[in-house]
Amino acid sequence: MSIRDDVISMKSVAAKLASSSIELRNNALSKIAENLRKNADKIFKANETDLANANVNGVSESVLKRLKFDNHKLEDVIGGINQLIGLEDPVGKVTLNRELDEGLILKRVTCPIGIIGVIFEARPDALVQIASLCIKSGNCAILKGGKETAESNRCLFNIIRESIVEAGLPEICLIQAEAHSEIDELLKCDGLVDLLIPRGSNAFVQYIMNNTKIPVMGHADGICHIFIDKDADLTKAVSVAVDAKTQYSAACNAVETILVDKEIAAKAIPKLVKALKASNVVVNADSYTADVYNAYKSETDGEVHVIADDAFNVEYLRLELGIKIVDNIDEAIAHINKYGSHHTDSIITDNKEAADKFQNMVDSAGVYVNVSTRFADGFRYGFGAEVGISTSKLHARGPVGLEGLVTYKYKLNGNGHVVTDYASGVKTFKHRDLD
Amino acid sequence: MSIRDDVISMKSVAAKLASSSIELRNNALSKIAENLRKNADKIFKANETDLANANVNGVSESVLKRLKFDNHKLEDVIGGINQLIGLEDPVGKVTLNRELDEGLILKRVTCPIGIIGVIFEARPDALVQIASLCIKSGNCAILKGGKETAESNRCLFNIIRESIVEAGLPEICLIQAEAHSEIDELLKCDGLVDLLIPRGSNAFVQYIMNNTKIPVMGHADGICHIFIDKDADLTKAVSVAVDAKTQYSAACNAVETILVDKEIAAKAIPKLVKALKASNVVVNADSYTADVYNAYKSETDGEVHVIADDAFNVEYLRLELGIKIVDNIDEAIAHINKYGSHHTDSIITDNKEAADKFQNMVDSAGVYVNVSTRFADGFRYGFGAEVGISTSKLHARGPVGLEGLVTYKYKLNGNGHVVTDYASGVKTFKHRDLD
Repeated sequence: MSIRDDVISMKSVAAKLASSSIELRNNALSKIAENLRKNADKIFKANETDLANANVNGVSESVLKRLKFDNHKLEDVIGGINQLIGLEDPVGKVTLNRELDEGLILKRVTCPIGIIGVIFEARPDALVQIASLCIKSGNCAILKGGKETAESNRCLFNIIRESIVEAGLPEICLIQAEAHSEIDELLKCDGLVDLLIPRGSNAFVQYIMNNTKIPVMGHADGICHIFIDKDADLTKAVSVAVDAKTQYSAACNAVETILVDKEIAAKAIPKLVKALKASNVVVNADSYTADVYNAYKSETDGEVHVIADDAFNVEYLRLELGIKIVDNIDEAIAHINKYGSHHTDSIITDNKEAADKFQNMVDSAGVYVNVSTRFADGFRYGFGAEVGISTSKLHARGPVGLEGLVTYKYKLNGNGHVVTDYASGVKTFKHRDLD
Repeated sequence: MSIRDDVISMKSVAAKLASSSIELRNNALSKIAENLRKNADKIFKANETDLANANVNGVSESVLKRLKFDNHKLEDVIGGINQLIGLEDPVGKVTLNRELDEGLILKRVTCPIGIIGVIFEARPDALVQIASLCIKSGNCAILKGGKETAESNRCLFNIIRESIVEAGLPEICLIQAEAHSEIDELLKCDGLVDLLIPRGSNAFVQYIMNNTKIPVMGHADGICHIFIDKDADLTKAVSVAVDAKTQYSAACNAVETILVDKEIAAKAIPKLVKALKASNVVVNADSYTADVYNAYKSETDGEVHVIADDAFNVEYLRLELGIKIVDNIDEAIAHINKYGSHHTDSIITDNKEAADKFQNMVDSAGVYVNVSTRFADGFRYGFGAEVGISTSKLHARGPVGLEGLVTYKYKLNGNGHVVTDYASGVKTFKHRDLD
């Protein structure tokens, strides 16, 4: 069977899953949680094979950490599933209820998107989270995980699929793609697959976006900023900046550029650089900022690297960032809107007016005041889990949980109503919102 | 100046329009309405030039009707603007308000999309409606109308632009593109333009979709269905079908295929064909349906054309349609999901269970019960106006009014909160929804 054939079969059951009751979908999630725990040993054994293969192939410590699926991770994903069960049904919410005319009632009702393809990195827990989110939101899903977790994924996927069948859902609601070549097959399924969510490197996401007609949700870049306003509390500024860069520097929501208002630059920059360097962060600065730093630093402080004025569009994804002095908040906003990736940007200020201006005028999915950019995450937002973070402005923006996995339809109920009566003036619309 | 240069200038003011008050935006709309009326004679004169040119070039009666901009149309668009002024501000709505932890407040707030390009057909009233919708929703817009209305569009656009400047908005919030070559320039403005809304022929919309990296919202096809269920009231079925085909057959929401449950086919089809033929509709049917019709029609009834079983994916856009007998509602739903364009489909039935099933399982933007498909329209839904109808499942679906022209951002306010505290377990999230 090709992916395309599988997706065609999937399409024939999509409406069934879409119109299934929340009890059935929650029950499927309970079965998944139950069967994952029941098969813990099998899962850990499969994961050990992946880890052994990874060790043979020589992967980095951080990759190994992500690959590993132990009891702690199992309890985490089970906890996530239980949290998801507790969340309100995202399907069937009435978001508009309007009497167009007597006996002619228009409702806008949320419904699943349909068939979603998710291509994700080598993390076994991601497979469980994504499958659970799709089931809860009534969507069929094609799941393709990283090859480094092939054994764990296969084991987890089979348990999940058996669980949904046990609960009474069609088996073909979920498909696992295993071969890398199947990604290209999937990309050609426009007209069948409604949405693709790629997670991974910038180059990989760009490849997906450029090679399919299926709508793509996600983010290629995460160039996040912190702007230290002239009215910033410097202690907060420094601790937020250090957290945003160092708490997990490989994440898309880690900060890459820090902008500093020139009014406080002489005081702020030496403090900031010192703290960053103490956390092993490599600091880059344009020549003006470097000059200011050198003029005000103490003798024992280290050096910063000088970079070009226009070299602030870099996503480091490691313990490295850029610092730049700006004239004022307007220049900061303009810089972020120009060089940023519309992901998450934070201002540090005690000035309410500046905070409002920043939050209204910065064109990003997350606009923060006095907090770390690292909060941009579905779990931290209370979404139970996320399928990814979107930097697109259409449909879902920011961390995408259940609400981003549904669309809506307009249900219009009448009693033989025809447009001719309204066009001729025999009848007129009332347009009265109900309840 | 190229379109690209203009769009770059536009981008520098987009945040200003996005964060402008609703008073300012409504005031701009009032000025537009006022100045349109004040300059009525100038507009009508420009329109006469377009009409004279059209007559020289020999365009059809229906195109002439759309081109014409007389006092009646002027009052219509002014009425539309006043309706729009009365509508709630789509920007700044708080759709999520959650305490993540003490002093850490997450809000999801609606905001304009940014810069929108709309390419529309030769209808001067469309220019006014689209510009008004974009101003109300805080979006900058590039407007490109049909060349047949060049004079009217230029005149209307200048009045609108002067009005927004009078109200205090930046001039460059609105741009008019006049040359056809500027469409291709516009298509290359990815990274600057946030959304394209093309309106026009299937081929034109497909061309736009295939030649840009900018997200596109709209519809290429409008293959709408009516399914006459076994429990249908035949009188209603016939009058709804005639309305849906004949009230304006060139519209995307006109019906193109009528499916009839075989249980009532012998009774329903002769009635239906007779009524359609009386309204000059050409009726096509597959051979089985034609046989049933021929077996049950009266002698004076005319003929139907026999078409192939798989020739039901046609958008006629004229007084012509296809009729097909289906075994039951399940086959009807499967047919619609396969051959339809996910636009608008209606069931005629007095059976509540069948109605629910149809509305839940048909995968279209509009799923109707006992009403004409022609109701799929922003004005009829009470949206004031529409920029188009979307058959995409992401972002806006169905008629797109103000709500489809906004996105949202997550505003997170704290007091130096860092992720490290939550990762280490020093603090835990509360996730408590406020008000």
